[in-house]
Amino acid sequence: MTEIALGSGMKKQIGLVVKNETKAIEQADRFEQWLTHKGLSIVRRQSSMPAIKRTKGLRERSPASLFCVFVLGGDGTFLSAVRWIGDQQIPIIGVKFGEVGFLAETTEDRLREAADAILENRFTVRQQMRLNVQICRQEMEIARECAFNDVVINKGALARLARIRTHVDGQFLTDYRADGLIIATPTGSTAYSLAAGGPIIYPSVPGILITPICPFTLTNRPLIVPDSVTITIQLTEDASDIMLTCDGQVGIKIDERDTIIISKSLSPVQMITLPEQNYFDVLKAKLKWSGSRV
Amino acid sequence: MTEIALGSGMKKQIGLVVKNETKAIEQADRFEQWLTHKGLSIVRRQSSMPAIKRTKGLRERSPASLFCVFVLGGDGTFLSAVRWIGDQQIPIIGVKFGEVGFLAETTEDRLREAADAILENRFTVRQQMRLNVQICRQEMEIARECAFNDVVINKGALARLARIRTHVDGQFLTDYRADGLIIATPTGSTAYSLAAGGPIIYPSVPGILITPICPFTLTNRPLIVPDSVTITIQLTEDASDIMLTCDGQVGIKIDERDTIIISKSLSPVQMITLPEQNYFDVLKAKLKWSGSRV
Amino acid sequence: MTEIALGSGMKKQIGLVVKNETKAIEQADRFEQWLTHKGLSIVRRQSSMPAIKRTKGLRERSPASLFCVFVLGGDGTFLSAVRWIGDQQIPIIGVKFGEVGFLAETTEDRLREAADAILENRFTVRQQMRLNVQICRQEMEIARECAFNDVVINKGALARLARIRTHVDGQFLTDYRADGLIIATPTGSTAYSLAAGGPIIYPSVPGILITPICPFTLTNRPLIVPDSVTITIQLTEDASDIMLTCDGQVGIKIDERDTIIISKSLSPVQMITLPEQNYFDVLKAKLKWSGSRV
Amino acid sequence: MTEIALGSGMKKQIGLVVKNETKAIEQADRFEQWLTHKGLSIVRRQSSMPAIKRTKGLRERSPASLFCVFVLGGDGTFLSAVRWIGDQQIPIIGVKFGEVGFLAETTEDRLREAADAILENRFTVRQQMRLNVQICRQEMEIARECAFNDVVINKGALARLARIRTHVDGQFLTDYRADGLIIATPTGSTAYSLAAGGPIIYPSVPGILITPICPFTLTNRPLIVPDSVTITIQLTEDASDIMLTCDGQVGIKIDERDTIIISKSLSPVQMITLPEQNYFDVLKAKLKWSGSRV
Repeated sequence: MTEIALGSGMKKQIGLVVKNETKAIEQADRFEQWLTHKGLSIVRRQSSMPAIKRTKGLRERSPASLFCVFVLGGDGTFLSAVRWIGDQQIPIIGVKFGEVGFLAETTEDRLREAADAILENRFTVRQQMRLNVQICRQEMEIARECAFNDVVINKGALARLARIRTHVDGQFLTDYRADGLIIATPTGSTAYSLAAGGPIIYPSVPGILITPICPFTLTNRPLIVPDSVTITIQLTEDASDIMLTCDGQVGIKIDERDTIIISKSLSPVQMITLPEQNYFDVLKAKLKWSGSRV
Repeated sequence: MTEIALGSGMKKQIGLVVKNETKAIEQADRFEQWLTHKGLSIVRRQSSMPAIKRTKGLRERSPASLFCVFVLGGDGTFLSAVRWIGDQQIPIIGVKFGEVGFLAETTEDRLREAADAILENRFTVRQQMRLNVQICRQEMEIARECAFNDVVINKGALARLARIRTHVDGQFLTDYRADGLIIATPTGSTAYSLAAGGPIIYPSVPGILITPICPFTLTNRPLIVPDSVTITIQLTEDASDIMLTCDGQVGIKIDERDTIIISKSLSPVQMITLPEQNYFDVLKAKLKWSGSRV
Repeated sequence: MTEIALGSGMKKQIGLVVKNETKAIEQADRFEQWLTHKGLSIVRRQSSMPAIKRTKGLRERSPASLFCVFVLGGDGTFLSAVRWIGDQQIPIIGVKFGEVGFLAETTEDRLREAADAILENRFTVRQQMRLNVQICRQEMEIARECAFNDVVINKGALARLARIRTHVDGQFLTDYRADGLIIATPTGSTAYSLAAGGPIIYPSVPGILITPICPFTLTNRPLIVPDSVTITIQLTEDASDIMLTCDGQVGIKIDERDTIIISKSLSPVQMITLPEQNYFDVLKAKLKWSGSRV
Repeated sequence: MTEIALGSGMKKQIGLVVKNETKAIEQADRFEQWLTHKGLSIVRRQSSMPAIKRTKGLRERSPASLFCVFVLGGDGTFLSAVRWIGDQQIPIIGVKFGEVGFLAETTEDRLREAADAILENRFTVRQQMRLNVQICRQEMEIARECAFNDVVINKGALARLARIRTHVDGQFLTDYRADGLIIATPTGSTAYSLAAGGPIIYPSVPGILITPICPFTLTNRPLIVPDSVTITIQLTEDASDIMLTCDGQVGIKIDERDTIIISKSLSPVQMITLPEQNYFDVLKAKLKWSGSRV
């Protein structure tokens, strides 16, 4: 149970991150009005889903004073909300629309009931790991990012196979010759890594998943290492047209001069959990483990 | 047995495609000299392995009069030689350097012995299928290519999942949501498709292999259709940064206005076969089916 | 179009193979009555789904005079009907109950309409390959079977890894060290082989699929060979507790003295096809290629 | 560093578990002599590799007073030594012969050097998790086993698909319809589970791996759960010819009356580690991650 005290006379501030879609916007309008009537102050943010942005120096950050953040949208919207919060310890909850989402904790029709519980502090927070990513070029840090699902190193459509030299805690793992490499959290194991052949990892397992994308070496199976390690990645040889992306949200061009350092972030995401939800039920619904062929 | 008659007084013309690598070039120099001493005329071509070229209108074509083509290099060099020959019915043989190659029929140290056999017409030709690819934009053909291994549709590193609408002989197959799609010949089944999870197809099976790359829908398994079909591909929605490549040699940017039509070419590749070689031996050597863990 | 002439005054004989399940039996009772009223003579057979039978010398065979066979049940019932028909050229049609079946051509509610078309000879027959299996022990044939889906060599739960020596047209392929080996027709590619990681093969591709079950050697990928080959299998070393099964219907204990010879049968199954049906639609329904995660 | 004090005047007792193979036995004879000369007392045990034994009430247990155990053989011999030690906290070290073994820490030619270090207490112990398995039939415990690699539930060669109902900490996970189910430790992730499509888990990740064998439902991917959970397994319906095996060493027939309860053992295996060894080097050697096709 997370208790957040507020000075008297101050309005509780609620964050609202909304998918740029008519249905979500209308729902958010009604929810915002409902919250306002309760005397709450709202900080609202539209999340669009454009092509992945190339990183830039500055980025918008949510106010530190938010009591919690509601996300109305799918997993992409949730990931953008997580980036907005950054390393601030603000609880967050996803409300799903349409398709089952791995990151949503409640549904549209239970939103107000859930909101009542949260506003009255009747909720638990489950801390879910994210990854710090640091990109260094010739000893200089040129970028620092955070990922909740995954850090992906990917070659362009016309590029030759990447050679991705990977060390774990300073020990040489291998040179992956592959279309790319996914470094995923347990949360991210059900995202891109799954499509690349990775396993499913229960969110609380303290491990980091390394999944190569279409590896040339057929025995390069997905590998899970402890979440305490530091993973260091370098591109060998002529690495043209290679990108690093975080959560499919932001992309950075990298080349053979760069060293990418990935480790567990000290600021996990504060996932609001409600009693009703069960990870395996979501898994079964999402992957249709119904007992039939699929 | 392929008999190629030549008018008296004419020199036999031999094609020589050589990898741009010191060792291969030196070997080719010696081999060229040896052939010249035998009274043969040589057409030599260097094959470099740069980034995949964006297609251009014209391309060099081998002389129609070549008796056969020797390829000194790896599978990439072989594929470039096949493109150079185009739909001409000129027999071709690969000579491998270093790594085992699926497309090489003989080895460096047996080159002259093989050449003697070939020049005396002691060889058989195995016809191996290739694919015709036609790209139409609003009813106009904008490109026509040929592929011996595979036609690959691939998204860029920052692009969202492609949606690749696929019809087989006019019947709707599915909309693949994936990083890309590989349409491979049996020859190409041991190339990129293998890394994407595809099966191995013996070269003479008359089938075409459709392998999705990291499909979002986990049950989108590789599919083999008869080689008599026409496969039609369209990109749905906003298809930005999608490339079509043939044999990893040439790339064409495609978008949602385009229709890609793929079918078996009427001009198979004329692979010179020598008695000693065995497909399964190459397979086992290449994939190290030695009985140990890999 | 298959025309089957009958002498005047003779009643057409119709085969009816029915799953041992209340719903199927009731449906079959009504259908049999309906057929009888039309002046047809019915040969009915109940198909139970017990544990796989150990093979025995004799087996029941359908009358040669059957005009066609209707199967009311799932894929297991269909496979038992195919065994009953044996190598006789009798057209067969599956009517599905409940779950989508790969082998069913029509549904319960369209049964009479389909039957009318068939009885008036308004149907086409698609020939689908099956496999001959011959088991020889010290030069003697000890068993001969037929398989429409697959021939499976499988170790018992407590047995060590099998070593399955495989030749294709006399050429040594490999010694599979695995839990077992599946030799499947294209029809069988969507059955057990799919669970073992095999690809999907369109029924008319003339190939045979060799899929190892949990191979120790990770690069032992599924392999498709031409349907013209003969596959020869032997168990090496101490092969205890190894079974060969055909279509999951009949099992034979085999050991290191045996040679198993598998090739395409000269008697394909005569599948009745109706215009409405589309392979890809069944595939998508069965594998839920709906565009969502699965 | 583990310090094991011994009362003065007492001989250190050393366990020696030896593969039943001429070369290993000869090596063991020489090693035993060498140890005896050093004034040590030896308890030696032959490990044969017969068919998996059906469990019996009693089993031999190593003396509690052993200072450490040397294993001369492969992974199978090592697993039998681990069973012999049971839940006693006796350090163990594997010495590999021939093939690379995942469980061997040193090689034949370094054996005496390693032994010197160990006898002088110059070694570290890495604790590696094992699993407790309890089988209850109608409220009665009928068997209790331990597994260092894996607990496997497997159907016989002629049995129908098993339906394996699985709960994790009391929450229903799914009914696996599969040939079987593997519950593996990280150590066991490179054993049978790998052949069944599972990922590789670094030994110190505190997780348990659940890998279905040839699941009928194609999306039933391997799943990693925290090592703190209790996994409960039941067979539904008519479960004939289903076996449970631990580490491929001992087998128990189970049926639908049984409940199998699996959880982390409180007695991890005490693996002696020497400075030279590196997990990734073993992994690369074993899986031939050499950068080539496999």
